[in-house]
Amino acid sequence: MDFVAALRAAWRERDSLLCVGLDPDPARFPASLAGRPDAVFAFCRAIVDATADLVCAFKPQIAYFAARRAEDQLEALIAHIHARHPGVPVILDAKRGDIGSTAGQYAEEAFARYRADAVTVNPYMGRDSVEPYLAWRGKGVILLCRTSNPGGADLQNLDVGGEKLYERVARLVATEWNSGNNCALVVGATFPAEIACVRALAGDMPLLVPGIGAQGGDIAATVAAGQTADGAGLAINSSRAILYASAGEDFADAARRAALAMREAINACRAVGC
Amino acid sequence: MDFVAALRAAWRERDSLLCVGLDPDPARFPASLAGRPDAVFAFCRAIVDATADLVCAFKPQIAYFAARRAEDQLEALIAHIHARHPGVPVILDAKRGDIGSTAGQYAEEAFARYRADAVTVNPYMGRDSVEPYLAWRGKGVILLCRTSNPGGADLQNLDVGGEKLYERVARLVATEWNSGNNCALVVGATFPAEIACVRALAGDMPLLVPGIGAQGGDIAATVAAGQTADGAGLAINSSRAILYASAGEDFADAARRAALAMREAINACRAVGC
Repeated sequence: MDFVAALRAAWRERDSLLCVGLDPDPARFPASLAGRPDAVFAFCRAIVDATADLVCAFKPQIAYFAARRAEDQLEALIAHIHARHPGVPVILDAKRGDIGSTAGQYAEEAFARYRADAVTVNPYMGRDSVEPYLAWRGKGVILLCRTSNPGGADLQNLDVGGEKLYERVARLVATEWNSGNNCALVVGATFPAEIACVRALAGDMPLLVPGIGAQGGDIAATVAAGQTADGAGLAINSSRAILYASAGEDFADAARRAALAMREAINACRAVGC
Repeated sequence: MDFVAALRAAWRERDSLLCVGLDPDPARFPASLAGRPDAVFAFCRAIVDATADLVCAFKPQIAYFAARRAEDQLEALIAHIHARHPGVPVILDAKRGDIGSTAGQYAEEAFARYRADAVTVNPYMGRDSVEPYLAWRGKGVILLCRTSNPGGADLQNLDVGGEKLYERVARLVATEWNSGNNCALVVGATFPAEIACVRALAGDMPLLVPGIGAQGGDIAATVAAGQTADGAGLAINSSRAILYASAGEDFADAARRAALAMREAINACRAVGC
Protein backbone atom coordinates (compact mmCIF):
# COMPACT_ATOMS: atom_id res chain seq x y z
CA MET A 1 0.00 0.00 0.00
CA ASP A 2 1.02 3.63 -0.45
CA PHE A 3 1.75 4.98 3.02
CA VAL A 4 0.41 8.50 2.67
CA ALA A 5 -2.72 7.30 0.86
CA ALA A 6 -3.25 4.59 3.49
CA LEU A 7 -2.89 7.10 6.30
CA ARG A 8 -5.42 9.45 4.69
CA ALA A 9 -7.83 6.56 4.19
CA ALA A 10 -7.39 5.51 7.83
CA TRP A 11 -8.12 9.06 9.04
CA ARG A 12 -11.33 9.04 7.04
CA GLU A 13 -12.59 5.50 7.45
CA ARG A 14 -11.69 5.05 11.12
CA ASP A 15 -12.53 8.65 12.05
CA SER A 16 -9.31 8.79 14.04
CA LEU A 17 -6.09 10.78 14.16
CA LEU A 18 -4.74 8.59 16.94
CA CYS A 19 -1.50 6.67 16.41
CA VAL A 20 -0.67 4.13 19.11
CA GLY A 21 3.04 3.85 19.84
CA LEU A 22 4.29 0.37 20.72
CA ASP A 23 7.13 0.84 23.24
CA PRO A 24 7.02 -2.49 25.10
CA ASP A 25 8.73 -2.36 28.50
CA PRO A 26 8.60 -5.81 30.19
CA ALA A 27 9.00 -4.20 33.62
CA ARG A 28 5.49 -2.79 33.13
CA PHE A 29 3.81 -5.93 31.78
CA PRO A 30 1.14 -7.71 33.83
CA ALA A 31 2.24 -10.62 35.98
CA SER A 32 0.82 -13.28 33.67
CA LEU A 33 3.36 -12.40 30.98
CA ALA A 34 6.40 -12.58 33.28
CA GLY A 35 9.03 -14.97 32.02
CA ARG A 36 7.29 -15.78 28.75
CA PRO A 37 9.84 -15.75 25.95
CA ASP A 38 7.28 -14.17 23.62
CA ALA A 39 6.08 -11.64 26.20
CA VAL A 40 6.92 -8.61 24.07
CA PHE A 41 4.96 -9.93 21.11
CA ALA A 42 2.06 -11.16 23.26
CA PHE A 43 1.75 -7.81 25.04
CA CYS A 44 1.87 -5.76 21.84
CA ARG A 45 -0.50 -8.08 19.98
CA ALA A 46 -3.07 -7.71 22.75
CA ILE A 47 -2.77 -3.92 22.56
CA VAL A 48 -3.02 -3.98 18.76
CA ASP A 49 -6.06 -6.25 18.67
CA ALA A 50 -7.80 -4.14 21.35
CA THR A 51 -7.26 -0.81 19.59
CA ALA A 52 -6.90 -1.41 15.83
CA ASP A 53 -10.36 -0.08 14.94
CA LEU A 54 -9.64 3.14 16.84
CA VAL A 55 -6.34 4.17 15.30
CA CYS A 56 -4.94 5.62 12.07
CA ALA A 57 -1.55 3.91 12.52
CA PHE A 58 0.65 1.86 14.83
CA LYS A 59 4.17 2.97 15.59
CA PRO A 60 6.50 0.32 17.05
CA GLN A 61 9.70 1.82 18.50
CA ILE A 62 12.54 -0.49 17.48
CA ALA A 63 14.84 0.28 20.42
CA TYR A 64 12.48 -1.49 22.83
CA PHE A 65 12.80 -4.66 20.77
CA ALA A 66 16.52 -4.37 19.98
CA ALA A 67 17.53 -3.81 23.61
CA ARG A 68 16.24 -7.28 24.46
CA ARG A 69 17.03 -9.34 21.34
CA ALA A 70 13.38 -9.33 20.29
CA GLU A 71 13.75 -8.46 16.62
CA ASP A 72 11.93 -11.66 15.72
CA GLN A 73 8.99 -10.53 17.84
CA LEU A 74 8.94 -7.17 16.04
CA GLU A 75 8.81 -9.00 12.71
CA ALA A 76 5.95 -11.18 13.99
CA LEU A 77 4.10 -8.15 15.36
CA ILE A 78 4.20 -6.22 12.10
CA ALA A 79 3.20 -9.32 10.15
CA HIS A 80 0.27 -9.73 12.55
CA ILE A 81 -0.87 -6.13 12.01
CA HIS A 82 -0.71 -6.52 8.22
CA ALA A 83 -2.57 -9.85 8.32
CA ARG A 84 -5.26 -9.05 10.85
CA HIS A 85 -5.70 -5.32 10.50
CA PRO A 86 -5.12 -4.48 6.85
CA GLY A 87 -5.46 -0.79 6.17
CA VAL A 88 -3.68 0.26 9.37
CA PRO A 89 -0.24 1.49 8.33
CA VAL A 90 2.80 0.62 10.42
CA ILE A 91 5.38 3.30 11.14
CA LEU A 92 8.72 1.88 12.26
CA ASP A 93 10.13 4.44 14.67
CA ALA A 94 13.86 4.02 14.16
CA LYS A 95 15.15 7.56 13.54
CA ARG A 96 17.91 6.27 11.31
CA GLY A 97 20.41 8.56 9.62
CA ASP A 98 23.57 7.60 7.75
CA ILE A 99 25.45 8.01 4.47
CA GLY A 100 23.89 6.70 1.29
CA SER A 101 25.38 3.19 1.16
CA THR A 102 24.50 2.52 4.80
CA ALA A 103 21.13 4.26 4.52
CA GLY A 104 20.34 1.73 1.81
CA GLN A 105 20.91 -1.04 4.35
CA TYR A 106 18.67 0.67 6.89
CA ALA A 107 15.96 1.06 4.26
CA GLU A 108 16.23 -2.69 3.60
CA GLU A 109 15.90 -3.31 7.33
CA ALA A 110 12.77 -1.17 7.66
CA PHE A 111 10.95 -1.97 4.44
CA ALA A 112 12.12 -5.45 3.36
CA ARG A 113 12.88 -7.17 6.65
CA TYR A 114 10.23 -5.59 8.87
CA ARG A 115 7.74 -4.71 6.12
CA ALA A 116 7.02 -1.33 7.71
CA ASP A 117 4.95 1.12 5.66
CA ALA A 118 6.99 4.09 6.85
CA VAL A 119 10.12 4.81 8.86
CA THR A 120 11.28 7.80 10.87
CA VAL A 121 14.56 9.33 9.65
CA ASN A 122 16.91 11.93 11.12
CA PRO A 123 17.69 14.78 8.67
CA TYR A 124 21.04 15.88 10.18
CA MET A 125 23.12 14.22 7.45
CA GLY A 126 21.20 15.82 4.60
CA ARG A 127 19.64 14.88 1.33
CA ASP A 128 21.77 11.97 0.15
CA SER A 129 21.25 10.28 3.53
CA VAL A 130 17.48 10.36 2.91
CA GLU A 131 17.36 9.41 -0.76
CA PRO A 132 17.72 5.64 -0.29
CA TYR A 133 14.46 5.65 1.70
CA LEU A 134 12.71 7.92 -0.81
CA ALA A 135 13.60 5.45 -3.54
CA TRP A 136 11.23 2.83 -2.06
CA ARG A 137 8.04 3.59 -3.97
CA GLY A 138 4.96 3.89 -1.78
CA LYS A 139 6.89 3.75 1.48
CA GLY A 140 6.68 6.72 3.84
CA VAL A 141 9.71 8.71 5.02
CA ILE A 142 9.00 10.68 8.17
CA LEU A 143 11.68 13.26 8.90
CA LEU A 144 12.41 14.55 12.39
CA CYS A 145 11.67 18.26 12.35
CA ARG A 146 10.87 19.67 15.82
CA THR A 147 11.04 16.94 18.44
CA SER A 148 9.02 16.84 21.66
CA ASN A 149 11.88 16.58 24.17
CA PRO A 150 13.36 19.52 26.12
CA GLY A 151 16.76 19.24 24.38
CA GLY A 152 15.05 19.47 21.00
CA ALA A 153 15.60 23.22 21.16
CA ASP A 154 19.40 22.88 21.51
CA LEU A 155 19.90 22.67 17.75
CA GLN A 156 16.44 22.69 16.18
CA ASN A 157 15.57 26.20 17.40
CA LEU A 158 18.82 27.84 16.32
CA ASP A 159 18.33 30.74 13.93
CA VAL A 160 19.81 29.79 10.55
CA GLY A 161 19.24 33.13 8.83
CA GLY A 162 15.70 34.38 9.37
CA GLU A 163 14.24 31.02 10.27
CA LYS A 164 14.89 28.28 12.75
CA LEU A 165 16.65 25.05 11.88
CA TYR A 166 13.44 23.00 12.20
CA GLU A 167 11.71 25.42 9.81
CA ARG A 168 14.54 24.94 7.34
CA VAL A 169 14.06 21.19 7.62
CA ALA A 170 10.33 21.57 7.00
CA ARG A 171 11.00 23.76 3.96
CA LEU A 172 13.66 21.43 2.55
CA VAL A 173 11.32 18.47 2.87
CA ALA A 174 8.29 20.33 1.48
CA THR A 175 10.08 21.90 -1.48
CA GLU A 176 12.78 19.37 -2.38
CA TRP A 177 12.70 15.98 -0.70
CA ASN A 178 8.96 15.32 -1.09
CA SER A 179 8.84 15.16 -4.87
CA GLY A 180 7.45 11.61 -4.58
CA ASN A 181 4.71 12.71 -2.16
CA ASN A 182 5.86 10.15 0.38
CA CYS A 183 7.26 12.38 3.13
CA ALA A 184 5.89 13.41 6.50
CA LEU A 185 7.34 15.38 9.42
CA VAL A 186 7.70 14.79 13.16
CA VAL A 187 6.64 17.77 15.27
CA GLY A 188 6.19 17.42 19.03
CA ALA A 189 2.87 18.19 20.70
CA THR A 190 4.76 19.99 23.44
CA PHE A 191 5.22 23.03 21.17
CA PRO A 192 1.90 23.95 19.48
CA ALA A 193 3.18 27.27 18.09
CA GLU A 194 5.87 25.35 16.29
CA ILE A 195 3.34 22.87 14.92
CA ALA A 196 1.57 25.88 13.37
CA CYS A 197 4.83 27.10 11.82
CA VAL A 198 5.50 23.68 10.32
CA ARG A 199 1.93 23.34 9.03
CA ALA A 200 2.29 26.69 7.25
CA LEU A 201 5.45 25.47 5.53
CA ALA A 202 4.36 21.90 4.82
CA GLY A 203 1.05 22.32 3.03
CA ASP A 204 -1.11 19.28 3.69
CA MET A 205 1.81 16.93 4.34
CA PRO A 206 1.06 14.52 7.23
CA LEU A 207 2.55 15.44 10.58
CA LEU A 208 3.42 12.77 13.13
CA VAL A 209 2.94 14.35 16.54
CA PRO A 210 4.41 12.64 19.62
CA GLY A 211 4.25 14.12 23.09
CA ILE A 212 0.58 13.70 24.00
CA GLY A 213 -0.06 11.96 27.29
CA ALA A 214 3.01 11.06 29.37
CA GLN A 215 5.00 13.90 27.82
CA GLY A 216 2.30 16.48 28.64
CA GLY A 217 1.31 17.88 25.23
CA ASP A 218 -2.06 19.60 24.94
CA ILE A 219 -4.56 17.96 22.58
CA ALA A 220 -6.69 21.01 21.76
CA ALA A 221 -3.68 23.21 21.04
CA THR A 222 -2.10 20.48 18.93
CA VAL A 223 -5.18 19.94 16.80
CA ALA A 224 -5.83 23.66 16.39
CA ALA A 225 -2.24 24.26 15.30
CA GLY A 226 -1.76 21.27 13.08
CA GLN A 227 -4.99 20.18 11.42
CA THR A 228 -5.50 20.68 7.71
CA ALA A 229 -8.63 22.34 6.26
CA ASP A 230 -10.44 19.00 6.25
CA GLY A 231 -9.81 18.45 9.96
CA ALA A 232 -7.12 15.81 9.42
CA GLY A 233 -3.40 15.93 8.56
CA LEU A 234 -2.17 14.63 11.92
CA ALA A 235 -1.13 11.28 13.34
CA ILE A 236 -1.13 12.10 17.05
CA ASN A 237 0.90 9.52 18.89
CA SER A 238 0.33 8.19 22.37
CA SER A 239 2.40 5.33 23.74
CA ARG A 240 2.70 4.95 27.50
CA ALA A 241 -0.69 6.47 28.39
CA ILE A 242 -2.36 3.72 26.37
CA LEU A 243 -0.01 0.75 26.79
CA TYR A 244 0.13 1.07 30.56
CA ALA A 245 -3.36 2.41 31.27
CA SER A 246 -3.60 -0.55 33.67
CA ALA A 247 -0.77 -2.53 35.24
CA GLY A 248 -3.11 -5.49 35.74
CA GLU A 249 -4.43 -8.33 33.65
CA ASP A 250 -7.04 -5.97 32.19
CA PHE A 251 -4.31 -4.01 30.38
CA ALA A 252 -5.79 -4.56 26.92
CA ASP A 253 -9.29 -3.48 27.95
CA ALA A 254 -7.83 -0.49 29.74
CA ALA A 255 -5.80 0.37 26.65
CA ARG A 256 -8.95 0.25 24.55
CA ARG A 257 -10.77 2.59 26.94
CA ALA A 258 -7.78 4.96 26.96
CA ALA A 259 -7.57 4.89 23.16
CA LEU A 260 -11.30 5.52 22.81
CA ALA A 261 -11.08 8.46 25.20
CA MET A 262 -8.04 9.85 23.39
CA ARG A 263 -9.67 9.50 19.97
CA GLU A 264 -12.81 11.25 21.23
CA ALA A 265 -10.78 14.01 22.92
CA ILE A 266 -8.96 14.59 19.64
CA ASN A 267 -12.13 14.46 17.54
CA ALA A 268 -13.86 16.96 19.83
CA CYS A 269 -11.19 19.49 18.89
CA ARG A 270 -11.28 18.98 15.11
CA ALA A 271 -12.72 21.73 12.93
CA VAL A 272 -14.45 19.30 10.62
CA GLY A 273 -15.16 15.61 10.86
CA CYS A 274 -13.42 13.59 8.16
CA MET B 1 37.74 -0.61 29.88
CA ASP B 2 37.42 3.15 29.58
CA PHE B 3 36.90 3.89 25.91
CA VAL B 4 38.90 7.09 25.57
CA ALA B 5 41.76 5.71 27.65
CA ALA B 6 41.72 2.48 25.63
CA LEU B 7 41.78 4.41 22.36
CA ARG B 8 44.75 6.52 23.53
CA ALA B 9 46.57 3.37 24.64
CA ALA B 10 45.89 1.74 21.28
CA TRP B 11 47.24 4.77 19.39
CA ARG B 12 50.44 4.55 21.42
CA GLU B 13 50.99 0.81 21.75
CA ARG B 14 49.96 -0.16 18.24
CA ASP B 15 51.44 2.95 16.62
CA SER B 16 48.27 3.28 14.59
CA LEU B 17 45.48 5.79 14.00
CA LEU B 18 43.70 3.39 11.67
CA CYS B 19 40.17 2.26 12.50
CA VAL B 20 38.82 -0.56 10.35
CA GLY B 21 35.11 -0.27 9.61
CA LEU B 22 33.22 -3.55 9.41
CA ASP B 23 30.47 -3.07 6.80
CA PRO B 24 29.91 -6.65 5.62
CA ASP B 25 28.19 -6.89 2.24
CA PRO B 26 27.64 -10.55 1.27
CA ALA B 27 27.51 -9.60 -2.41
CA ARG B 28 31.22 -8.83 -2.15
CA PHE B 29 32.30 -11.90 -0.16
CA PRO B 30 34.55 -14.52 -1.76
CA ALA B 31 32.87 -17.55 -3.31
CA SER B 32 33.82 -19.91 -0.48
CA LEU B 33 31.52 -18.06 1.91
CA ALA B 34 28.47 -18.11 -0.36
CA GLY B 35 25.45 -19.66 1.29
CA ARG B 36 27.07 -20.13 4.68
CA PRO B 37 24.62 -19.05 7.39
CA ASP B 38 27.48 -17.55 9.40
CA ALA B 39 29.10 -15.87 6.39
CA VAL B 40 28.88 -12.36 7.86
CA PHE B 41 30.61 -13.43 11.07
CA ALA B 42 33.19 -15.56 9.26
CA PHE B 43 34.09 -12.75 6.86
CA CYS B 44 34.41 -10.14 9.59
CA ARG B 45 36.33 -12.44 11.91
CA ALA B 46 38.87 -13.12 9.19
CA ILE B 47 39.30 -9.38 8.62
CA VAL B 48 39.60 -8.73 12.35
CA ASP B 49 42.17 -11.47 12.95
CA ALA B 50 44.21 -10.32 9.95
CA THR B 51 44.34 -6.66 11.00
CA ALA B 52 43.94 -6.41 14.79
CA ASP B 53 47.60 -5.62 15.49
CA LEU B 54 47.48 -2.76 12.96
CA VAL B 55 44.44 -0.83 14.19
CA CYS B 56 43.41 1.45 17.05
CA ALA B 57 39.75 0.36 16.87
CA PHE B 58 37.17 -1.65 14.96
CA LYS B 59 33.91 -0.05 13.91
CA PRO B 60 31.10 -2.46 12.96
CA GLN B 61 28.21 -0.70 11.20
CA ILE B 62 25.02 -2.19 12.60
CA ALA B 63 22.84 -1.59 9.51
CA TYR B 64 24.77 -4.21 7.54
CA PHE B 65 23.90 -6.81 10.19
CA ALA B 66 20.32 -5.66 10.83
CA ALA B 67 19.37 -5.65 7.15
CA ARG B 68 19.95 -9.41 7.02
CA ARG B 69 18.86 -10.60 10.48
CA ALA B 70 22.46 -11.08 11.56
CA GLU B 71 22.33 -9.44 14.99
CA ASP B 72 23.54 -12.69 16.55
CA GLN B 73 26.59 -12.58 14.28
CA LEU B 74 27.31 -9.01 15.39
CA GLU B 75 27.16 -10.13 19.02
CA ALA B 76 29.51 -13.01 18.26
CA LEU B 77 31.89 -10.73 16.36
CA ILE B 78 32.22 -8.20 19.17
CA ALA B 79 32.64 -11.00 21.72
CA HIS B 80 35.38 -12.41 19.51
CA ILE B 81 37.20 -9.06 19.35
CA HIS B 82 37.03 -8.67 23.13
CA ALA B 83 38.22 -12.23 23.73
CA ARG B 84 40.97 -12.48 21.15
CA HIS B 85 42.11 -8.90 20.76
CA PRO B 86 41.76 -7.26 24.16
CA GLY B 87 42.82 -3.64 24.10
CA VAL B 88 41.21 -2.95 20.73
CA PRO B 89 38.08 -0.89 21.44
CA VAL B 90 34.90 -1.57 19.48
CA ILE B 91 32.86 1.37 18.20
CA LEU B 92 29.30 0.40 17.31
CA ASP B 93 28.35 2.65 14.41
CA ALA B 94 24.61 3.05 14.92
CA LYS B 95 24.04 6.84 14.80
CA ARG B 96 21.13 6.56 17.20
CA GLY B 97 19.14 9.57 18.36
CA ASP B 98 15.89 9.61 20.33
CA ILE B 99 14.17 11.01 23.43
CA GLY B 100 15.54 10.07 26.85
CA SER B 101 13.41 7.00 27.61
CA THR B 102 14.08 5.49 24.19
CA ALA B 103 17.72 6.57 24.20
CA GLY B 104 18.07 4.51 27.37
CA GLN B 105 16.93 1.46 25.41
CA TYR B 106 19.41 2.19 22.62
CA ALA B 107 22.20 2.56 25.19
CA GLU B 108 21.23 -0.86 26.58
CA GLU B 109 21.36 -2.24 23.04
CA ALA B 110 24.84 -0.86 22.35
CA PHE B 111 26.54 -1.33 25.70
CA ALA B 112 24.74 -4.24 27.44
CA ARG B 113 23.61 -6.39 24.53
CA TYR B 114 26.47 -5.81 22.09
CA ARG B 115 29.13 -4.89 24.67
CA ALA B 116 30.45 -2.10 22.45
CA ASP B 117 32.98 0.26 24.01
CA ALA B 118 31.52 3.28 22.21
CA VAL B 119 28.54 4.16 20.05
CA THR B 120 27.94 6.86 17.45
CA VAL B 121 25.03 9.18 18.28
CA ASN B 122 23.17 11.85 16.28
CA PRO B 123 22.99 15.22 18.10
CA TYR B 124 19.89 16.62 16.34
CA MET B 125 17.59 15.95 19.32
CA GLY B 126 19.85 17.71 21.82
CA ARG B 127 21.26 17.13 25.25
CA ASP B 128 18.64 14.97 26.94
CA SER B 129 18.74 12.58 23.98
CA VAL B 130 22.48 12.06 24.64
CA GLU B 131 22.50 11.85 28.44
CA PRO B 132 21.40 8.19 28.70
CA TYR B 133 24.57 7.20 26.82
CA LEU B 134 26.78 9.54 28.86
CA ALA B 135 25.48 7.87 32.02
CA TRP B 136 27.28 4.63 31.13
CA ARG B 137 30.58 5.13 32.90
CA GLY B 138 33.62 4.40 30.76
CA LYS B 139 31.64 3.99 27.55
CA GLY B 140 32.37 6.35 24.67
CA VAL B 141 29.76 8.59 23.05
CA ILE B 142 30.76 9.73 19.57
CA LEU B 143 28.59 12.57 18.28
CA LEU B 144 28.06 13.26 14.61
CA CYS B 145 29.48 16.70 13.92
CA ARG B 146 30.47 17.22 10.26
CA THR B 147 29.74 14.11 8.23
CA SER B 148 31.64 12.99 5.16
CA ASN B 149 28.74 12.79 2.69
CA PRO B 150 27.81 15.50 0.16
CA GLY B 151 24.47 16.22 1.86
CA GLY B 152 26.25 16.79 5.15
CA ALA B 153 26.40 20.48 4.25
CA ASP B 154 22.60 20.79 3.89
CA LEU B 155 22.13 21.42 7.61
CA GLN B 156 25.56 21.12 9.22
CA ASN B 157 27.06 24.08 7.35
CA LEU B 158 24.20 26.49 7.99
CA ASP B 159 25.27 29.66 9.78
CA VAL B 160 23.71 29.68 13.25
CA GLY B 161 24.93 33.11 14.30
CA GLY B 162 28.64 33.57 13.60
CA GLU B 163 29.41 29.88 13.41
CA LYS B 164 28.21 26.86 11.50
CA LEU B 165 25.89 24.27 12.96
CA TYR B 166 28.65 21.63 13.11
CA GLU B 167 30.85 24.10 15.00
CA ARG B 168 28.02 24.67 17.47
CA VAL B 169 27.78 20.90 17.94
CA ALA B 170 31.54 20.69 18.55
CA ARG B 171 31.33 23.52 21.08
CA LEU B 172 28.32 22.06 22.87
CA VAL B 173 30.05 18.70 23.18
CA ALA B 174 33.39 20.19 24.25
CA THR B 175 32.01 22.64 26.80
CA GLU B 176 28.88 20.89 28.12
CA TRP B 177 28.30 17.28 27.15
CA ASN B 178 31.86 16.02 27.73
CA SER B 179 32.00 16.57 31.48
CA GLY B 180 32.70 12.85 31.92
CA ASN B 181 35.55 12.90 29.38
CA ASN B 182 33.88 10.17 27.38
CA CYS B 183 32.88 12.04 24.22
CA ALA B 184 34.35 12.11 20.74
CA LEU B 185 33.25 13.69 17.45
CA VAL B 186 32.71 12.45 13.90
CA VAL B 187 34.28 14.69 11.26
CA GLY B 188 34.57 13.53 7.67
CA ALA B 189 37.94 13.32 5.93
CA THR B 190 36.39 14.87 2.86
CA PHE B 191 36.56 18.34 4.48
CA PRO B 192 40.04 18.93 6.01
CA ALA B 193 39.43 22.63 6.70
CA GLU B 194 36.46 21.66 8.79
CA ILE B 195 38.50 19.06 10.68
CA ALA B 196 40.83 21.92 11.64
CA CYS B 197 37.88 24.02 12.86
CA VAL B 198 36.62 21.15 14.98
CA ARG B 199 40.07 20.40 16.38
CA ALA B 200 40.38 24.05 17.46
CA LEU B 201 37.09 23.80 19.32
CA ALA B 202 37.49 20.31 20.74
CA GLY B 203 40.87 20.44 22.49
CA ASP B 204 42.38 16.97 22.47
CA MET B 205 39.05 15.14 22.23
CA PRO B 206 39.28 12.12 19.90
CA LEU B 207 37.93 12.61 16.40
CA LEU B 208 36.53 9.70 14.42
CA VAL B 209 37.23 10.47 10.77
CA PRO B 210 35.41 8.49 8.08
CA GLY B 211 35.79 9.19 4.38
CA ILE B 212 39.30 7.92 3.66
CA GLY B 213 39.53 5.45 0.79
CA ALA B 214 36.31 4.76 -1.12
CA GLN B 215 34.94 8.18 -0.22
CA GLY B 216 38.05 9.99 -1.48
CA GLY B 217 39.34 11.83 1.60
CA ASP B 218 43.00 12.92 1.61
CA ILE B 219 45.19 11.33 4.31
CA ALA B 220 47.87 14.01 4.54
CA ALA B 221 45.36 16.84 4.76
CA THR B 222 43.31 14.94 7.33
CA VAL B 223 46.28 14.26 9.59
CA ALA B 224 47.63 17.78 9.28
CA ALA B 225 44.25 19.27 10.15
CA GLY B 226 43.23 16.91 12.90
CA GLN B 227 46.21 15.58 14.82
CA THR B 228 46.90 16.70 18.36
CA ALA B 229 50.30 17.97 19.53
CA ASP B 230 51.46 14.43 20.23
CA GLY B 231 50.66 13.29 16.70
CA ALA B 232 47.53 11.36 17.68
CA GLY B 233 43.91 12.35 18.41
CA LEU B 234 42.40 10.68 15.35
CA ALA B 235 40.72 7.37 14.60
CA ILE B 236 40.81 7.42 10.81
CA ASN B 237 38.29 4.96 9.47
CA SER B 238 38.54 2.90 6.33
CA SER B 239 35.95 0.26 5.52
CA ARG B 240 35.51 -0.78 1.90
CA ALA B 241 39.13 -0.14 0.79
CA ILE B 242 40.27 -2.71 3.35
CA LEU B 243 37.38 -5.20 3.47
CA TYR B 244 37.25 -5.60 -0.28
CA ALA B 245 40.92 -5.13 -1.16
CA SER B 246 40.57 -8.49 -2.91
CA ALA B 247 37.39 -10.18 -4.12
CA GLY B 248 39.09 -13.57 -3.97
CA GLU B 249 39.90 -16.14 -1.33
CA ASP B 250 42.94 -14.08 -0.31
CA PHE B 251 40.67 -11.29 0.99
CA ALA B 252 42.07 -11.42 4.53
CA ASP B 253 45.69 -11.27 3.38
CA ALA B 254 44.80 -8.47 1.00
CA ALA B 255 43.01 -6.64 3.82
CA ARG B 256 46.13 -6.93 5.96
CA ARG B 257 48.28 -5.51 3.20
CA ALA B 258 45.83 -2.66 2.66
CA ALA B 259 45.67 -1.94 6.39
CA LEU B 260 49.45 -1.96 6.67
CA ALA B 261 49.75 0.44 3.76
CA MET B 262 47.05 2.70 5.19
CA ARG B 263 48.65 2.73 8.63
CA GLU B 264 52.04 3.57 7.12
CA ALA B 265 50.55 6.28 4.90
CA ILE B 266 48.92 7.83 7.95
CA ASN B 267 52.04 7.52 10.10
CA ALA B 268 54.17 9.15 7.41
CA CYS B 269 52.05 12.28 7.77
CA ARG B 270 52.11 12.53 11.57
CA ALA B 271 54.08 15.32 13.20
CA VAL B 272 55.37 13.09 15.97
CA GLY B 273 55.40 9.34 16.43
CA CYS B 274 53.38 8.20 19.45
